[in-house]
Amino acid sequence: MKNTVKFQTPIIIVNFKTYLEATGRKAVELAEKAEKVTRETNVCIAVAPQFVDIARVAHAVEIPVFAQHIDPIKPGSCTGHVLAEAVKEAGAVGTLINHSERQLKLAHIDATVKLARETDLVSCVCVNNPSVSAAAATLKPDIVSIEPPELIGTGVAVSKAQPEVVTDTVKLVRGINPSVTILCGAGISRGEDVRVALKLKTQGVLVASGIVKAKDPYSILREFADSTKQ
Amino acid sequence: MKNTVKFQTPIIIVNFKTYLEATGRKAVELAEKAEKVTRETNVCIAVAPQFVDIARVAHAVEIPVFAQHIDPIKPGSCTGHVLAEAVKEAGAVGTLINHSERQLKLAHIDATVKLARETDLVSCVCVNNPSVSAAAATLKPDIVSIEPPELIGTGVAVSKAQPEVVTDTVKLVRGINPSVTILCGAGISRGEDVRVALKLKTQGVLVASGIVKAKDPYSILREFADSTKQ
Amino acid sequence: MKNTVKFQTPIIIVNFKTYLEATGRKAVELAEKAEKVTRETNVCIAVAPQFVDIARVAHAVEIPVFAQHIDPIKPGSCTGHVLAEAVKEAGAVGTLINHSERQLKLAHIDATVKLARETDLVSCVCVNNPSVSAAAATLKPDIVSIEPPELIGTGVAVSKAQPEVVTDTVKLVRGINPSVTILCGAGISRGEDVRVALKLKTQGVLVASGIVKAKDPYSILREFADSTKQ
Amino acid sequence: MKNTVKFQTPIIIVNFKTYLEATGRKAVELAEKAEKVTRETNVCIAVAPQFVDIARVAHAVEIPVFAQHIDPIKPGSCTGHVLAEAVKEAGAVGTLINHSERQLKLAHIDATVKLARETDLVSCVCVNNPSVSAAAATLKPDIVSIEPPELIGTGVAVSKAQPEVVTDTVKLVRGINPSVTILCGAGISRGEDVRVALKLKTQGVLVASGIVKAKDPYSILREFADSTKQ
Repeated sequence: MKNTVKFQTPIIIVNFKTYLEATGRKAVELAEKAEKVTRETNVCIAVAPQFVDIARVAHAVEIPVFAQHIDPIKPGSCTGHVLAEAVKEAGAVGTLINHSERQLKLAHIDATVKLARETDLVSCVCVNNPSVSAAAATLKPDIVSIEPPELIGTGVAVSKAQPEVVTDTVKLVRGINPSVTILCGAGISRGEDVRVALKLKTQGVLVASGIVKAKDPYSILREFADSTKQ
Repeated sequence: MKNTVKFQTPIIIVNFKTYLEATGRKAVELAEKAEKVTRETNVCIAVAPQFVDIARVAHAVEIPVFAQHIDPIKPGSCTGHVLAEAVKEAGAVGTLINHSERQLKLAHIDATVKLARETDLVSCVCVNNPSVSAAAATLKPDIVSIEPPELIGTGVAVSKAQPEVVTDTVKLVRGINPSVTILCGAGISRGEDVRVALKLKTQGVLVASGIVKAKDPYSILREFADSTKQ
Repeated sequence: MKNTVKFQTPIIIVNFKTYLEATGRKAVELAEKAEKVTRETNVCIAVAPQFVDIARVAHAVEIPVFAQHIDPIKPGSCTGHVLAEAVKEAGAVGTLINHSERQLKLAHIDATVKLARETDLVSCVCVNNPSVSAAAATLKPDIVSIEPPELIGTGVAVSKAQPEVVTDTVKLVRGINPSVTILCGAGISRGEDVRVALKLKTQGVLVASGIVKAKDPYSILREFADSTKQ
Repeated sequence: MKNTVKFQTPIIIVNFKTYLEATGRKAVELAEKAEKVTRETNVCIAVAPQFVDIARVAHAVEIPVFAQHIDPIKPGSCTGHVLAEAVKEAGAVGTLINHSERQLKLAHIDATVKLARETDLVSCVCVNNPSVSAAAATLKPDIVSIEPPELIGTGVAVSKAQPEVVTDTVKLVRGINPSVTILCGAGISRGEDVRVALKLKTQGVLVASGIVKAKDPYSILREFADSTKQ
């Protein structure tokens, strides 16, 4: 593992989901583009490839690699589940938890955040609205990321379309947990969306199709990174 | 990918589950022991490592590599799910489906078997009793594997303790599907268990702790392989 | 309990789902309309109200009352689950199982069908396509009901729009289980849809919005019942 | 509906689970014993029977009746689910949410609490440990009830065996939500357990087997009620 680039804010996390454009060899290529932007701009970009691609991506790049999910399990008889220790050994330095496409029971989010802490994985709990973001913040993850499900994949940015969702989240979360990193996501597709997200006092964005499905992911990522400095 | 050893019966499938003894570097080592036995005996042994270890294991050995699970999804917005195309590109040639520790809704088993067929992955549907084995057989997977959950991990072999479960399964499944491969599992820990399983007209075994937790996995695997010839 | 009308084919099962038009007092009123049609035509109509309305409906009418779901559990520590014995005591004589809006794991369908048999409840397993209908038929429920999910609630009848789905189901299911009752559903909204369904060798229909959301449920039910005789 | 006894603290909620001793006719009898104790002691006792028994119990007694669960759904196409409006019309005045035997995704707990509020049902969110209790408290339910799962059904009371779990919960929850009612449960089987629970600054208990499986539920309930006054 070579993830030598430090996790720092502002941060852009690129969720590869199960897009064919970001599977296998193409996952490595996309991660390399992200790494190139990080090298050029010194802005932290993390990538979250599929489970089977974590090792290959983590071997190829020095930027932070996240799992898309881990299960609240201990080593043992859990066929078909995702073990924190295994993603860690494969080279991941963090994990998404409770993404809207992979939601967990509340007690399992709690257990998974604790497990990530024990395994020394950065935990990013995804939430759908301000009240749930406050609930997540009490569990002391490293990152809370607010993504209104109805905007995911639309290209309509949460930071533009629903700024009050972001500001309510920041207010509620900060009241409970002053140190957690707050991201927003859903529809983020232009540098301007990133700039507004930071202006609303988040510390970065969680993005997927805006990068993965872009004609030129490198250019958009570069635009995102540059926008964090404006 | 180098999985050049043909899938043939009798077959021994070793499920690595989420055992630390079969995670990461140790997954590769265990797969290499299985490959050694295959080379020495010409008996087909397949291994089912965790998702994150599939690529590494498939790169290291020439025996068949199975995923422990795939999701009934198409490429796209399925964060934290397991895409057939991704495990295929990582080097898997087959997948377990509906393991008792990762059970699926009936319609999802149907969809997953069809997906495996389209993706050219060998499908092994795991079932808990004879009536469910018959239901699974109607879906035309490549393999049906019967594992009474109450015996999993006990060291008490299904082929010895509940031979009627195996013979009922074989009878019901054969009445519906003459060509499907039938395996049995749960508690398989000695060569004798394998010999009896084949005598009961299964074509192999699905094994986990009996190998993974063994002091000397190579010796037990060799004993298993030799027993298929008795 | 007064369910003295015998379960017989052809049968029309009306699923009340969670429609407000079929909740509480209105559930009783709708069941009474179904009972009226049964009295006038001697065609068996069963109703499947919500759990909380089973007792009230079963007390008010003599036609068969079904639960919409039961859980594969034994009496005991299962807070929030639906116990077969409890729906039976409340007056239900049967239950839907695995409706597309309440799907179960395969092993749970098997366990629930067995539980219904032990509790003397008529079991109606809902399925989404012909291959799944065959799988369900091996489990020996009393009824298999095929409902392509994409047509549910559309008013476009499966028997008209996808007759091959119905005929394939009948063929596959009859090859496995000569005695199971076969129903079809999804989009059934006119008497003609019912007539075609029976012509395709099903023995009745499972209907929901076509009756529950109708301006005059009595008239449509009467039309359905009359159509079974043409 | 006659639930004319006001919801007030201290409160004892009796969860009937799916015990045969509290199903159907016996559910009514047990509720009547609870009502008798309320009349004698003026201590608020609520009962949570199975869904199918809500209407019958609510009709028979004047004490508060809770559902054991409701689903985060709107009226419509949700076969086999539990609609807030339906349990309300059946006579329930509140509902358990996220019981350890019926856990929900975090976003669903949030949606269900909001739904209960809109439907004018008292919401009681069950939690397994102090950190999860804090998360639940941010969602502003009426009641948070802490029940360590490992003590449920043991007869070993949480208030005696793990007082620090209760005090940690009270401290964390009060820091977030000064007005929420806090209960504790698991293993509560003697009046002394209730007395200690209140001393630890909870406002009541959630109990199941301690009452339902008791030889003389009336006597134990009376002992519980009397203990709230010591």
